[in-house]
Amino acid sequence: MGQTITYLVPVFGVLALLYTFWRSAWVSKQEVGTERMGRIAVNIADGAMAFLKAEYRVLAIFVLAVAILLGISGNTADSSPLIALSFVLGAICSALAGFIGMRVATKANVRTTNAARTSLGKALEIAFAGGSVMGLGVVGLGVVGLGVLFLGYSSMGWDINRVITVITGFSFGASSIALFARVGGGIYTKAADVGADLVGKVEAGIPEDHPLNPATIADNVGDNVGDVAGMGADLFESYVGSIIGTMVLGAAFILVTDPATQEVISGSAGFESDNPFGGLNAVLLPLVLASVGIVTSILGTFFVKVKEGGDPQKALNRGEFLSAGVMLAATFGIVNWMLPAEWTFEGTTYTSMGVFWAVIFGLAGGLLIGMITEYYTGTGTKPVKSIVDQSLTGAATNIIAGLGVGMQSTAIPILILAVAIVGSYSFAGLYGIAIAAVGMLSNTGIQLAVDAYGPISDNAGGIAEMAELPKEVRERTDKLDAVGNTTAAIGKGFAIGSAALTALALFAAFITAYNLSHPDARLTSINITSPYVMAALFVGGMLPFLFSALSMGAVGRAAMDMIQEVRRQFKSIPELTAALDVMRKNDGKDFADWSDADQKTFEAADGKAEYGKCVEISTAASIREMVRPGLLAVLAPVVVGLTPGLIGLGSQLGAEMLGGLLAGVTVTGVLMAIFQSNAGGAWDNAKKMFEEGVEINGEMYYKGSDPHKATVVGDTVGDPFKDTSGPSLNILLKLMSVVALVIAPLL
Amino acid sequence: MGQTITYLVPVFGVLALLYTFWRSAWVSKQEVGTERMGRIAVNIADGAMAFLKAEYRVLAIFVLAVAILLGISGNTADSSPLIALSFVLGAICSALAGFIGMRVATKANVRTTNAARTSLGKALEIAFAGGSVMGLGVVGLGVVGLGVLFLGYSSMGWDINRVITVITGFSFGASSIALFARVGGGIYTKAADVGADLVGKVEAGIPEDHPLNPATIADNVGDNVGDVAGMGADLFESYVGSIIGTMVLGAAFILVTDPATQEVISGSAGFESDNPFGGLNAVLLPLVLASVGIVTSILGTFFVKVKEGGDPQKALNRGEFLSAGVMLAATFGIVNWMLPAEWTFEGTTYTSMGVFWAVIFGLAGGLLIGMITEYYTGTGTKPVKSIVDQSLTGAATNIIAGLGVGMQSTAIPILILAVAIVGSYSFAGLYGIAIAAVGMLSNTGIQLAVDAYGPISDNAGGIAEMAELPKEVRERTDKLDAVGNTTAAIGKGFAIGSAALTALALFAAFITAYNLSHPDARLTSINITSPYVMAALFVGGMLPFLFSALSMGAVGRAAMDMIQEVRRQFKSIPELTAALDVMRKNDGKDFADWSDADQKTFEAADGKAEYGKCVEISTAASIREMVRPGLLAVLAPVVVGLTPGLIGLGSQLGAEMLGGLLAGVTVTGVLMAIFQSNAGGAWDNAKKMFEEGVEINGEMYYKGSDPHKATVVGDTVGDPFKDTSGPSLNILLKLMSVVALVIAPLL
Repeated sequence: MGQTITYLVPVFGVLALLYTFWRSAWVSKQEVGTERMGRIAVNIADGAMAFLKAEYRVLAIFVLAVAILLGISGNTADSSPLIALSFVLGAICSALAGFIGMRVATKANVRTTNAARTSLGKALEIAFAGGSVMGLGVVGLGVVGLGVLFLGYSSMGWDINRVITVITGFSFGASSIALFARVGGGIYTKAADVGADLVGKVEAGIPEDHPLNPATIADNVGDNVGDVAGMGADLFESYVGSIIGTMVLGAAFILVTDPATQEVISGSAGFESDNPFGGLNAVLLPLVLASVGIVTSILGTFFVKVKEGGDPQKALNRGEFLSAGVMLAATFGIVNWMLPAEWTFEGTTYTSMGVFWAVIFGLAGGLLIGMITEYYTGTGTKPVKSIVDQSLTGAATNIIAGLGVGMQSTAIPILILAVAIVGSYSFAGLYGIAIAAVGMLSNTGIQLAVDAYGPISDNAGGIAEMAELPKEVRERTDKLDAVGNTTAAIGKGFAIGSAALTALALFAAFITAYNLSHPDARLTSINITSPYVMAALFVGGMLPFLFSALSMGAVGRAAMDMIQEVRRQFKSIPELTAALDVMRKNDGKDFADWSDADQKTFEAADGKAEYGKCVEISTAASIREMVRPGLLAVLAPVVVGLTPGLIGLGSQLGAEMLGGLLAGVTVTGVLMAIFQSNAGGAWDNAKKMFEEGVEINGEMYYKGSDPHKATVVGDTVGDPFKDTSGPSLNILLKLMSVVALVIAPLL
Repeated sequence: MGQTITYLVPVFGVLALLYTFWRSAWVSKQEVGTERMGRIAVNIADGAMAFLKAEYRVLAIFVLAVAILLGISGNTADSSPLIALSFVLGAICSALAGFIGMRVATKANVRTTNAARTSLGKALEIAFAGGSVMGLGVVGLGVVGLGVLFLGYSSMGWDINRVITVITGFSFGASSIALFARVGGGIYTKAADVGADLVGKVEAGIPEDHPLNPATIADNVGDNVGDVAGMGADLFESYVGSIIGTMVLGAAFILVTDPATQEVISGSAGFESDNPFGGLNAVLLPLVLASVGIVTSILGTFFVKVKEGGDPQKALNRGEFLSAGVMLAATFGIVNWMLPAEWTFEGTTYTSMGVFWAVIFGLAGGLLIGMITEYYTGTGTKPVKSIVDQSLTGAATNIIAGLGVGMQSTAIPILILAVAIVGSYSFAGLYGIAIAAVGMLSNTGIQLAVDAYGPISDNAGGIAEMAELPKEVRERTDKLDAVGNTTAAIGKGFAIGSAALTALALFAAFITAYNLSHPDARLTSINITSPYVMAALFVGGMLPFLFSALSMGAVGRAAMDMIQEVRRQFKSIPELTAALDVMRKNDGKDFADWSDADQKTFEAADGKAEYGKCVEISTAASIREMVRPGLLAVLAPVVVGLTPGLIGLGSQLGAEMLGGLLAGVTVTGVLMAIFQSNAGGAWDNAKKMFEEGVEINGEMYYKGSDPHKATVVGDTVGDPFKDTSGPSLNILLKLMSVVALVIAPLL
């Protein structure tokens, strides 16, 4: 059975990939629309591809360098080259996941626009098909990659711990790419956004997505490289990390007996090597859950359909909740099938039902955190309304209120997380914490499909605007874009919850791995009353602050480059200058009422903006700026972990301090991620409330009012918070734990 | 000798108090100036006193309630009523320190103004005399309080550990008052400031400190209750906390032998009860250092003198560095005199020189953190200039840059702190960490004198403005106010560094106290790999975020109350309405060129603003708002520490989780304090750079330019950061540790 499962896992992965090919081909077959739409779409697709190429070129060097270091590191003797191989494969799969998702997204966007010219239902279908390619691509590559590596390394007749150690390289590869992709994509999208907004909207007075704005293509490219490719790499990383963390902890249960005396050396009854799963029950469980999750995700996608006039929100919810319900039932069955009803390990009694309850704790925690996220950031909620009210006295009070809401919004999610940690632990030990994360993420396929559907609809709206299509097209795409906010908030809750649990699982895995490789200097406790650990805890806690500062500074610098380029074009391209002049001259008039000469001047500027230059600049700036925060994340654990050993204070102290560092990073990383994401989200929706019209003290305020302008300031501050530094922190804490896990044998 | 020292300590405290009476009387004897100046000063003094009275009335209830709880808690049996007594005394001393400081400050302000009419040197002398009353008052009360309690409890023939346990109540009392005073004062000062600025300056267009502005007295009261009384209570708390933490740890060294067998039960050779210090060498050391620090502080004050045209900065530096130098030499002597040259305790070898080095690590750490603070927040430095540059594109980029600078500024101070922790520990163990904090704070007398001198000069300038004195008076007070920034930054570095070290010392003291009272369930390690500890670490890490959110929200609400009151007065007091009208009418004209009727209308408004109403509103709002954050701080450790025991999970788990909570609070508390204080400071000085004129990309910008307006937004955001939530966090982390220490026997 164990053998059969090992062969079956990659098959499920291949199934997911086949699904993506099928949907991808279907999307490609749809109509592009007018010639102009096609031209815009090609510009966006080319820009996005240019960014990915430039990014992957830089990352290739990084991957190569790290692979060589891993290969010669002497990590558990002759496994080193294979760890390097896993690392490279992890990096490639992660990059591939981003690539697949982005390629289909840049096809689906324009086709969604075109479909929206006639039908909401068809538009939803295309946008969601694009998203589901991303979703299933990510889980497919994850399961294929892990499945094939596990199969391959297992067949070498190694000890299971060695197999898993070698596989951790895969997670490290995935995390590295994820961090760079998130940071690079985040910087790109915000630099383009700020550049397009500040010079285009504010200085030149042209609407968002207007074809005269040279940064407009870069802005739309940004949505793809940040929100699609970046998010894809991010979730790929969570998915893989949680599975590997669980495998490491699950391996501890395997019963090992002394061949001579038949005495138990380690492990637990119920995990004998001659049981149907070869004793690997707990190791294979996360892989099986992930494989079944693929089937339930695909199943769910068939229920996302809407008729004209129907509610897209309901369609998305139907798909997602149906899939989650089936998955939950399946989890119950699988856990009871694969695990012994009861077993004892290192003095603790575990039960299969306990493991199931741990999953429930994880799921409930993720769901609740998502609901709290929605409460703190949703349109019309009390906290967002408080920001709206404070905007009456200007930008300063709007900012203070937003920062306050962001900070306050950490309280309940952290309490929920604390309960989820303690709850899943008390039901199934450290393995319970890890499997809770896997449970949260087993539905990643459809969850990510819903997430990726957002930026595709957003892009579709942008194309409608740039191609100057009739208003109702934009209205349809806006309707698509507006829904899925609740699902997206819940997705965010799962992302944060799973990141924290995965980091803890990897943390526990790190200790396990260190103890396996250092039988003479085992680590039984990481004691915070030790000043060395406390100092490391301080330094670890500081890293998310430094990391956020670096990524926010990077957005600022990249945006400056963009602003200067847009200003240069407005000044030095005569057609643009002239068109802006006549626009200002005819401010407020309908285009039809302009003089013929003015109309001609305006039309002469069409296509004269050098979109490509802006794309190039955003690409160069974001690639340049992603290096420093990325290296910080990879190097910090290496330096802290290895230094004590190198200066003669002993490798155990290094491991302890590294543990302190990880705890610090995890705690403040989660806090800063929640704070920044929610503050950004709340500012954003406070602005949106003014755009829809809002009542304060009995008076109505709209777009363009002074308080609305104050919320624009808040939203601009929130942008790098919620789209660059906030989401990057989720990866940061997992990446550091993975680095620790990989270098554990080297300490 | 030990006996002699115990009697001598309070004598030094009395010496400090005598000094404060002498300087206080001298200040009172100085001329007040014109009748109008006198009237304004009385308004400020009355307002400040009204706030203190209202605050102390609320705190009296809190103190009484906690004292009763402590008294009946059964804390180490019949010591409970005495812990309650210590608690009440600590609260009274802390309140008294704030009261003394504020009373003299509200006398010194107007006398400084009056002296500034003729002489810079005399003005400095008065302002500094006011500050030194605050400084010596704080250390005097601290040393008298601790000294008398120690003497009294020692004379009861108790075991030394019991003596110290009972004394910890004093620190708890001091911390509670400090937190409420800091939070309440911080809310008051910022609410008044924002109210005066937003309605007065921005809406009505009258200059700062203009007598027409009803909030102007409240604004000046705020400087006194926030920056003087709040800061006094804050430093009193640090001072007392670090001394008590050291005493607890020092008591462990005392040699205890079995009377029958003469075998060593605990402690170390060199600390025999028949040595000259009665074995209390390490317990008495912090008290002796504090006592000698009083003498060196008083000595230093005599060197703060400046002649007309001289540099006040140099005078302050001379006094402070001279005092610090003498103190350092004295520390060397005292440490070598009081401690054995070498001793061994629980397997570790200590030396008196090691203890001295620990002090050096603390001092160097504090100094370096101060210099880094100055670098990140000082006028003209690279980080502040980066905020200035980013202000060119508006308020949003100014805010992003400031948040980035604040976050980045945590990095080096945390590394310094980590080195100081590890360094002082490796030289003298946990005792080294505690004594490093005492070393940092032994000069509190003069350090605080310099700190308190700032708001006195600031107030003096406000009075000059309100009394419409000639320009050169304001110029002299501005000169006084502007200096001392470097010394203030260094003071801030010491505040943060000592808070962190004191919290760690109290943390270690908590473990010691718990183990003493639970010999059967000793805590040898607080293991972060335990999910319970990790969950507590998360919750602890979250508290500073929640606390900051609460205090920032409180400032917002209190400011709203103030804004509405000012608006009401402008509308409903006819003389004010008329005066504002003629001001607007004659905008830009010199007063002499106004028509006679307009001049008369304007003068008729003099004194018509109802300052008292604004003072009342600010008082009521800040008292109301300080309760929630204050209770959060006191209750959180009690709930986390006691719950596991109450629900049957065992008291040891409670102690472990409480340890995790404290570690979390300490780490993110320090980080958030640095982040918020420095972001606020940097925004403030970015604004000041525009007011002096600044060059960006070759162009000059001044006050009133668009980028300057962007910096005003930043400064307003920074105000509650740097004056309310930031400094309160320093107290929060110490208060929680003290609460843990006090409840340790109850767990």
